[in-house]
Order: sequence, then C-alpha cells, then structure tokens
Amino acid sequence: MFDPSSLRPLYAPDSIAIVGASNNAQKFGGRPIKYMGDTGYGGKIYPVHPRETEIQGHRVYSDVREIGAPVDLALIAVPGPSVLEAANACAEAGVGAAVVIASGFAETGDAQGAMWQDELVALSRRSGMRILGPNCMGTASMLTGAITTFATVFEFYTLRPGGIAMASQSGAMGAHLLVLAAQRGLGSHSMITSGNECDVDVAQCIGYLANDPTVSVIACYLEGCKNPDALIESLEMARRNGKPVVALKVGATDIGAEAAGTHTAALAGSDAVFDAVLKEGGVHRARNLDEMLLVASACSAGKYPNGKRLGIVTISGGGGVMAADAAVDNGLEVPAMPEHAQKKLKALMPFAAVRNPVDTTAQVSSNFALLATNLEVMLDEGDCDALVIFLAYVALSPRVWANLSEILFKFRERYPDALVVCTGMYKREDAAALEERGYLVVEDLTNGVAMVAVLERFARHFERPARAIQTTTLPAPADIPGALNESAALALLGAAGVPVLPTRVVTTAAEAAAAAQALGGALAVKLLSADIAHKSDIGGVKLGVEGPEAAAAAFEAVIAAAKRSAPNAKIDGAVIAPMVSGGVETILGVVMDPVFGPAVMLGLGGVFAEILDDVVIRRAPVDEQGATAMVEALRGKMLLQGARGSEPSDVPALIAAIVALSQFAYVNRERISGVDINPFLVRPAGQGAVALDALIVPRNE
Amino acid sequence: MFDPSSLRPLYAPDSIAIVGASNNAQKFGGRPIKYMGDTGYGGKIYPVHPRETEIQGHRVYSDVREIGAPVDLALIAVPGPSVLEAANACAEAGVGAAVVIASGFAETGDAQGAMWQDELVALSRRSGMRILGPNCMGTASMLTGAITTFATVFEFYTLRPGGIAMASQSGAMGAHLLVLAAQRGLGSHSMITSGNECDVDVAQCIGYLANDPTVSVIACYLEGCKNPDALIESLEMARRNGKPVVALKVGATDIGAEAAGTHTAALAGSDAVFDAVLKEGGVHRARNLDEMLLVASACSAGKYPNGKRLGIVTISGGGGVMAADAAVDNGLEVPAMPEHAQKKLKALMPFAAVRNPVDTTAQVSSNFALLATNLEVMLDEGDCDALVIFLAYVALSPRVWANLSEILFKFRERYPDALVVCTGMYKREDAAALEERGYLVVEDLTNGVAMVAVLERFARHFERPARAIQTTTLPAPADIPGALNESAALALLGAAGVPVLPTRVVTTAAEAAAAAQALGGALAVKLLSADIAHKSDIGGVKLGVEGPEAAAAAFEAVIAAAKRSAPNAKIDGAVIAPMVSGGVETILGVVMDPVFGPAVMLGLGGVFAEILDDVVIRRAPVDEQGATAMVEALRGKMLLQGARGSEPSDVPALIAAIVALSQFAYVNRERISGVDINPFLVRPAGQGAVALDALIVPRNE
Repeated sequence: MFDPSSLRPLYAPDSIAIVGASNNAQKFGGRPIKYMGDTGYGGKIYPVHPRETEIQGHRVYSDVREIGAPVDLALIAVPGPSVLEAANACAEAGVGAAVVIASGFAETGDAQGAMWQDELVALSRRSGMRILGPNCMGTASMLTGAITTFATVFEFYTLRPGGIAMASQSGAMGAHLLVLAAQRGLGSHSMITSGNECDVDVAQCIGYLANDPTVSVIACYLEGCKNPDALIESLEMARRNGKPVVALKVGATDIGAEAAGTHTAALAGSDAVFDAVLKEGGVHRARNLDEMLLVASACSAGKYPNGKRLGIVTISGGGGVMAADAAVDNGLEVPAMPEHAQKKLKALMPFAAVRNPVDTTAQVSSNFALLATNLEVMLDEGDCDALVIFLAYVALSPRVWANLSEILFKFRERYPDALVVCTGMYKREDAAALEERGYLVVEDLTNGVAMVAVLERFARHFERPARAIQTTTLPAPADIPGALNESAALALLGAAGVPVLPTRVVTTAAEAAAAAQALGGALAVKLLSADIAHKSDIGGVKLGVEGPEAAAAAFEAVIAAAKRSAPNAKIDGAVIAPMVSGGVETILGVVMDPVFGPAVMLGLGGVFAEILDDVVIRRAPVDEQGATAMVEALRGKMLLQGARGSEPSDVPALIAAIVALSQFAYVNRERISGVDINPFLVRPAGQGAVALDALIVPRNE
Repeated sequence: MFDPSSLRPLYAPDSIAIVGASNNAQKFGGRPIKYMGDTGYGGKIYPVHPRETEIQGHRVYSDVREIGAPVDLALIAVPGPSVLEAANACAEAGVGAAVVIASGFAETGDAQGAMWQDELVALSRRSGMRILGPNCMGTASMLTGAITTFATVFEFYTLRPGGIAMASQSGAMGAHLLVLAAQRGLGSHSMITSGNECDVDVAQCIGYLANDPTVSVIACYLEGCKNPDALIESLEMARRNGKPVVALKVGATDIGAEAAGTHTAALAGSDAVFDAVLKEGGVHRARNLDEMLLVASACSAGKYPNGKRLGIVTISGGGGVMAADAAVDNGLEVPAMPEHAQKKLKALMPFAAVRNPVDTTAQVSSNFALLATNLEVMLDEGDCDALVIFLAYVALSPRVWANLSEILFKFRERYPDALVVCTGMYKREDAAALEERGYLVVEDLTNGVAMVAVLERFARHFERPARAIQTTTLPAPADIPGALNESAALALLGAAGVPVLPTRVVTTAAEAAAAAQALGGALAVKLLSADIAHKSDIGGVKLGVEGPEAAAAAFEAVIAAAKRSAPNAKIDGAVIAPMVSGGVETILGVVMDPVFGPAVMLGLGGVFAEILDDVVIRRAPVDEQGATAMVEALRGKMLLQGARGSEPSDVPALIAAIVALSQFAYVNRERISGVDINPFLVRPAGQGAVALDALIVPRNE
C-alpha cells in the first residue's frame, strides 16, 4: 500500500516557490503568479530569480535554498537542461513537491532525455521530494487558488470552486477539460496534469483525492498506466470512501492503442485488461469528454438512489415515452404507480396520464402545486428511488420560474435526500439555485435518465465488500518445460485443479490398444505433432473408436495420414482420450498484460467468442466472487444457466475452474505467456466440467 | 403516390388569416401576430374577429369569407366547440390550408371529440383544404417569418434562418426543439407540429421538404405513423433529392411503446418494424434530442465525404488517439499517410507524429501555415475523404484566431468541397464564420468524428438505386384453412417457393412403412398433434429410423407414448421426414405489423436469435437486394459466410427463401397473422437450404 498523503503539497500547498519566475505574465514563469493574483491564493508566493528583486509585487529570492521558510510546492519553470540543477536545489531546500513543466525528457525517445528523467526519479527516491512531470502542464487548485499551470484557461474563464477533482496524463487534455468545466459552470476542486509521470502519477492522485473530504468525484483522462498496483489500491480507497471515479481512457481500439504507443512514454496496456481493471474498480468509463463531465457533474451533488425504480413526471407525453425508453435502455425500472396513488393523482389532474410516466400536460404550468403533489406521491406511495422531471423550456419564463422555484425549493426541504433530476431548460442562475439545493440539473432528458442509472451503479459499487484478501493458499508454481504438447498441457492444468480429460500419449499401436483397454468406452485418437496444425483436415483424428483393436488400427491410420501429407513433420505419437459430449462449450484462457500481468478470459463456445466477441476478462487471481461476476457478464450467459429448452449447466464447476486457472496463471506469471483451453466443456448441472484440449505457451517461446 | 405540393400554403404562405385574432399578445390568437411583427413576415396578415376593427395594427375582417383576396393559410385560434364552424368558413373562402390548435378532439378518447375530428377529416377531403392538427402547436417558417404557433420560444429567442427543417407530432417537443435550435444558434428552415394528424401528417411533410430546394436536412420527432405509404414514399423522395432525414422516434422499448399507447391517438406501431422502415429509408435514428440536432447541424453544411478514409490533425497526441478510437467505433478508416507524405510532413515538423493521426503538438500555434500544409498533404497525397481538426481551446485566444482564421479561410478557397470538421472550442461568432465557409464546427472531438461517419452513411444512401419496383409476378394468394398442422404449413410454404423438407403424414403403421419405403434413408418419425407441445419430452419423436419395419414400429411407439402421457389429446397421426443434418440453423418468420403490415424476420440459430436478439426485420415484400441486406445486417453473419474452420453456407438459397417467404407474406397479408420457420437449415454452399419445421397462424385464429 502506498501512502497518498505525501501528495498534499501538490494539492494544498501553504507556500509556493516559482523557480524561473518572470515579471512577464505571458511567460511560463510569469503566468501562474498572475493567475494566483486573480484567484486570491492565500498562501505564500516565493518567486526565485537570480537577478530580479521584485516580481509581480512579490519579493524575489535568488535561490530556493535562501527562502528560509518551509516551501510546500515548487514550480520549476526553467528549460529542460536547467531542470536537474533546480530540482536538486529544491530537494536541498526541503521542498515537499516539485512541478517540472519542461519537455525534453523520456518523451523524446533519445538517450539524453531518458537519462535526465532517470536522474529526476533517483532524486525523488533519495530525497522524498515528490516530482510531478516532467513534460506536464502543472496543477490548479480551485479551492485554494494555488496555480502552477501556464494553461491560458485562466485568461478566459474563472473556475467555480466545487467538488470535481480532475487529473490528466495529457497536459493539452487537462487544460481543455478545465475550459470545458469552466464553460459548463461546473464546481471544480482541482486539476493535475502528470505528463511523463517520473514520480507522481494519476493512479496515486486518485488515492489522494479518495481521501480528501472536499472531493465529491474524481474525473481522469488516461492514456496508460505505469503503476497498476497503485491504480487498483486507489480505486479501492475511492470505493471505501464513496468517491465515484469517472475516466476517459483513450486507446480503446487497436488503432487507438497504436497511436498511443507512438505518443507517450507511458506503456499503453492492452485495453481489454485495462478495461477489466477499471470495471472491477467501479470506474465509469466515459466515451468522450462530454460524457465525462456530464457524469462528474451528476456525481457532484452527492445524491445517490437506493435502487432502480424511477419516477418520471413530464409536461409532454412524448417526453414521458422518451424517458421511459431511456430508463429501460439504462437498466432502470419504471414501476406503475399503485392503484390508490393513480386514483389520487387522477382526482387532482383529470387530464393527466398517471401511471408512470406521469404526464401532467402543460396545464400544470398554471398550478405547480400539482407537480409537488405528484412528486410526493411518487416517493411516498410509489416507492420510487429517484425522480426525473421534464418541463421542456417553460422554466425560462420568469413568471413560471417564480412559481416553480417556490414549489421546488419547498419540496426539497421535505425530501432533502431524494435524487431528483430536473431536465429541460433553465436559465443558468436558476439551474445554479436548484443545484445549490441538491437537485441535479441536466438539459437533455435522456441524459438525465442515464445519470440516474450511473449513480445507481456507483451506489451499488460503494456497498460491495472489499475484494477478499486471498485466503486460500495459492498452488506452488509449476515446472514448465520449454514446449508442451496438448497432453502435457492438460496434465499441468489438471494438477493445478482445472478438470481435464484423462488422456494417454501413445507411440505404438500396442500402446494404443493398451490405453483403449484402460480407458474403455468410445475414444478419440488424435495425432500428436506440434508441426501439424489442422489435424482433422489431413485425417489425423479418428472419433468414436471402441476397443483395443480399433484403437491400434486408428493409431496406424493417423500416423500414416501424417506421413502422407506432411513427410517432414516431427510426429510424437498420438493422444487417446475418452469421447465426451453433452454440455456447453466454453473457452478459457490466460493473457499476460504488459501492464497488469496475468488475466483470465472466459468466452462462450467458438462462435460466440470469435464472431460475437462475447468474452470477459479479469485480472488474475480471481476468487469465486470474481469468477461468478465473469459468468454473469457474458451476454450469452443464458446458455449456461439453461436457455429455453436447454438444461442448466454445471456453473459451479466452471467457476471453480476459472479460479484454479487464474491461480495457475498468477503463480506461473513469470513462466508462461498464455494459455488456451478450447473447448472447456461445461456439462449439465451436477456433472462437472472438463477441458478437452489445451495449449500452454511458455514464457520464452 | 401523393402530391406533397398541396402543403405549400403551410410552409410558404403569401397570406395568413388569424381566426380568433386578439390584441392581447399573450393570447393564442394574439401571439402569432406579435411574433410575425418581430420576424418581419412579408406576406399579408388578415386578423378575423367579429367585433374588433384593428388588431395589432392590422385591419380586421369580421369573417374569413369577407377578406376578398386569396388566403393561403388560416390559423384557427378558437376553442374546440367553435372550430368546425370556423373551418367550414375557411373552406368556403378557398383557404389553402388551416391550422387547428384547439384540443378536445380524438385525443380525448370520447365520442364527441372523435366525431368532431371525423368532421374535420370529411371537410378536408370534400374541400381540398389541408388541415394541420387539431391539438397541435402550429407552424413557424424561419425563412419567410410566417408564424402560426403560440410557442413562447419567440419571446426568448430569435431563430436564425437556415436549412434545418423540423417536424414534430408532439407540440411540446416541437416547441422544445425550437428552443434548443435557437440556443445552439442553428440555421432553421421551419417547424411544423402535427398533433392529431387528422389530415396533414409528418410523413407528408417529409415529402414536401424533400422537394424544397431551401431545405438541407429534415429532422423529425415521431411517436407513431398513420400513413405508412406516405412515409415510405417521402423517404424515397428525400433519398432521390439528397436530403438527409434524422428522426427521433420514441417508444423504442416495450415500456416506451406502452406509454405511447396511452398518450397519443396515433397508432404506435411495433418498434422493430418501424425501425426497419426507417433504416431502409436511410433515416438516421437519433437516441435523443441532442443527437438529433447534432446530426441536423452536421448535415446543414451540405458537405459529404466520398468514402470512409479519415484524416485527423490534432495539437494533442491524446486527442489523436481519442479521434482514432472514435473513427474505428464508427466504422471509419484512419489510413496511414503514404511514406513520401510522412517524410514531407516530418521535414516540416520534426517534433510531430505524422502517420495519421497527425499530432502537430502545441507548437503549431506559432505557425499555422504548417496546419494548412498538413491538411493539403492529407487530401492530396493521403487520399483522405474527410478531415477532422482538433485544436482544443487555443482558438479562443484572439491572437491565435487572427492567424488561424486567415489560414483556414484561405485553405477553404483551394478546397471548397472537402468535408472538414473543426472540433474543440471556438467563440460563437468565429464558429459562425467557419460555418459560413462550409466548415463543420462540433465542440466535442468524438462527436465530430461520429458526424463524418453519419454523413458518409447518408452519402451512400443517396447513391443507392431506388427500391426496385416489383417486376417478378407475385404468387397468387394461398388457400389457407382455419388451422394448419406442421405438415400442411410446410406444404403451403413449399408451394410458395420456400424449400421445405418432403414430409408424409401417416395415420397407420402400414402407411408409415410405405412412406419409409418411398422416402428412403434415415428418417424422423414425429407425433402429429396440435394438443401436445413438447413432443420429444414424452417420447413422441423417434430419430434415425431406417426401413419400413422400423418406421412402422416407430409409428406405434409415438402413438402409444402420446396415449400414455396425454390420453385426452387429439392425435392426427405422425409425420415422417428424412433426417437432414449439416448446415447452419436459421429462423425465418413473418410478423404482421399493425401499421406497416407484413414483415419478414431472419435470425441465426435458436441461441443467436433468442439469447442475443440477433434478428433482422424488413417490410415485405423484399427483393434479392433487400434479402441480401438482411443477411449482411446479422451480427453473426460470419457463421453463414464461413467462420474460422467452418465452410460457407448456401447464402443464395437463403436469400431466395427470404424473398419467397416475403412474397407469401405479402400476398396473404389478409389471411395470416404470422409465420415461424424454425429451424430453416442453410446447407453448405451449393447444397441449398431447407425448412425443417413450420408454423402458420391464420388471421382469425
């Protein structure tokens, strides 16, 4: 576990030194001082410059070591070649954290840049001074007014202080996010841009923010991850403290990932595993910046529903239908109001549809008390967990707003904790007044409904138990030779607790006959050769073989077929295995992610996995709970649970196999680079499951 | 074919009478006159009022028949009970079209309202006067300034004239759309709200707008459709004239459709068939109002790409990755720039990534000529069909904008037709300047990329040939008895050209033996009884039966099984059919949509269709091209085309069967209410396809 409290100087500095300070408010070393004048930063500002005596009204120090008072944060605003000297001076002066904005480090790809960055890393480790950057755009804290960024957003906008904390690996995107947040009037806590992440990374920032009571939601822009353990620990801290995390992680597609590889020194991990880690950590993965800020804004009110039951009140029937569509699309329920509640509403509003969605029609505009009664009935008698109100644009009229606001403000006093989303158009100041009272205001109706679903998922995630510490003893690592044939792979997996088909490797017809005798029943006889890929195509597979003589003949036949069609192939004999049928075919596998390490994969049958991409991935090891969640996440899970007409499969056996495979992958992570079990047959309930074929790729193959 | 030109008085009236005009600009009969004063409507305005002499500066007529000049459009702003008299007077006066805003007609569900509406319909038919409404919010034409709506949007906003034509069945949603369009600064052509659609409906409006050269895109809000033929014809007019149509159709989910049923007098058709009709008509179906206006705005520039190759230029590597992700998600290509182009760009910008996405880094801000060179290279040497530029927020700086705008304006002169999307932040007036020059401006980068994909789909749709007129002779309707057993259903479908299994119905063991003799090979013997659903569960199915004796025995066995487990069931004998295996199981079916009539459905295998909902629906009859499109639209189509390891199936036989089934459905649409063919086995290429089981539900069952 890392201690995120060492990031306090970055987020809440009592004093800031600017090394390379400038009187010119256009220069990188001048802008932040100017901006802090505007934000009214209350801490000490120490400009450092070798010759100047006063900069933008502040006394200047010729060296950071001469300040003679504690310095929490130092902005190092000097060019790349001077950074190391300045950083060393800061460390000597006992600075808590330094921000390095210069580029020319590891991101260049050249030896000099890499060496400079290595020296920064070493300095940080040696001195304990945290370093943000290099090649970053600094920090901005809207709560304290501490600014170390040169981003020009502060020339165009004033950012409203609030609970949305942002962190971005990209400086440009971080700055852009600030502009978008300002333009939307969002209440912002802070922005940190981490650049090359030589020391401080976004993963650790999440951990700091998860423990900061002034933060209501954490919004991140990610391109990769250098510190998977910190990310996972930080996400767990956020869960424990009820802080929602929303992330835009780019490189979701192959071409995106390719571009990421050329862009940043951060190692862009395979997106599938990254995505699985984010999902397991309860992160809402946004598709774009718009969605990220929408979710962040929805979370910042701090109101969460207790369940999925949504009440909808609109002044337009079409709006009600649209909202109901959106609710279903987002996995919410739109329960019909109880009979007595419907009667009550119908008595008040004979013209209205009262089932839910409730359509008050535009007539409610002349009597907003009806709206309040509606909302009350839905909460008190309809057991709704959240309400969405759509009033189109009527609240733009000052006369309407005067009536409506009175009703809504009063309603809030009686139901202070309910999640109530006001959709449609409001004047900005009126929307702010609603938000101050804990209403969520979302212009688009369907987005408003979607946000209820997002908040409900966060609420459920917060209630989840912490990921269980591995209590069972992990198996010992296996002895994995340089190359394994199918039979050896199955044997290794069998030893690791994955149920596998009992197979025999035979090298003569006599051995084949003996094996058939021992195994009994109908058998498959399969050529064993690493050089021949599609064995059945060349006649290298015989099925339904019964008895010793037939087995001997089948052995001769597959060997002859191999010699005929691939005279130069190395032939290791044949594998004899019982024929098994009945059950649902699945695929199990292990991938080694360059960032997150081993992960297990589960897919349904060949067609499902390969054509429909219905596979689920999770970082290894997974416990029973995790394996269960994997099965639940399959789109085709009904096939295992017993679809129309088909019987349920032995899902517990599948779950046990996933756990065992994941442990095998974890303890052997240095020894293997991948596992395929295809097919893994899940038999009818109570009859277990069995791996029919397996491939293990040793690490150095 | 209907003639949409009769809607001209609604859209481009030279004169407007207001029946029930008022001096009070707050009243329904006063507001439009006030609004037309503001918009500067250039036509004649004739207030009609029994007592007043002047209203809002206009001379008043006591009766519409006394105006003594042609009246294109009459707004009937009187209460429900007076509407008919006013409408009759309008018709007598030769008014071209009347707008009825009063409610109290068919939407009330009572007899009086329905009767009044019927009389309006009759009046319209008799007189030729077109009637919009009742229960609607009128019209607004931003090009002419003709306003008959009382929507208060005109009190808050001025709408910019432009090419976006909107039509809405819901008045509230129509008015809300106007507010959103105004707030976004979109150039709007018109808004029509159609309410109860007693005569004029949105489908016909699409047809009118498709033929209006001042319209660049048609945006509709739909809750249902009363006039399927007009909708289909209008969409074809739009395709022919290159007018994109974007629609928000609510009631997409079951609960939504349920709400729609209670809301509107329009019959909300089954969404699956409605969706299929919209798809076939090339309509972009938006998920919400935001997306609808985004797409409308993207179309209004009138620039379309020639293909899917997207060039991306950003000042942030992360932006490039995000754009590339979005491109792949939306089915676009991000081709690498040719070697020589990359070299050329690298020479200009040694610091940049030049492959595509091109990341100029923020350094381009100091030399925007590099940006222009970039764009030129991408179009000239990279063969890009469209470009997306992401400059984050740098253009907010006046200094940057001065440089940037000069470069972009010049670039446009050299490449006037290229689709170029500027994403990121621009001041509103700067964005307008770009739009005037044919640039698309979209704040969100991923939305900007998505719009390129939307425009590309429209462009392909416009190029499609018109839906072929049915040239082949349709089959004669079938003689369908009140109830059909499986064998009879297969026989009917076989006669209609769907390949079916040759089956024999037998009622004695001797007949069974004779059938086995005639059919030969391995057979299935299946109990024939409409009263027993799961025949195999009770032993009512015997498979792999060979030879006459075995067939006789199997017959006795299935009859005995039926008598044992369901003594009261009516037993019709047994069906004997050849065993068929090998191939891909599909499901074919027919649904009867209450609005659009018969539609054919295609799904893949039981599990695909039932668990994964992988089914495709199309209105019958479909031709070969349509059936091919259906196969292409299956997510699991690879299974038919030959997935990894499996051989390709006889897709032409499947297509022929879909065509034949759709023709059967069409000619028998009055006689049947549904067909299921499950499974329909598509055998390996060249071996045909065959229906193994079928159910036909006669209409009155």
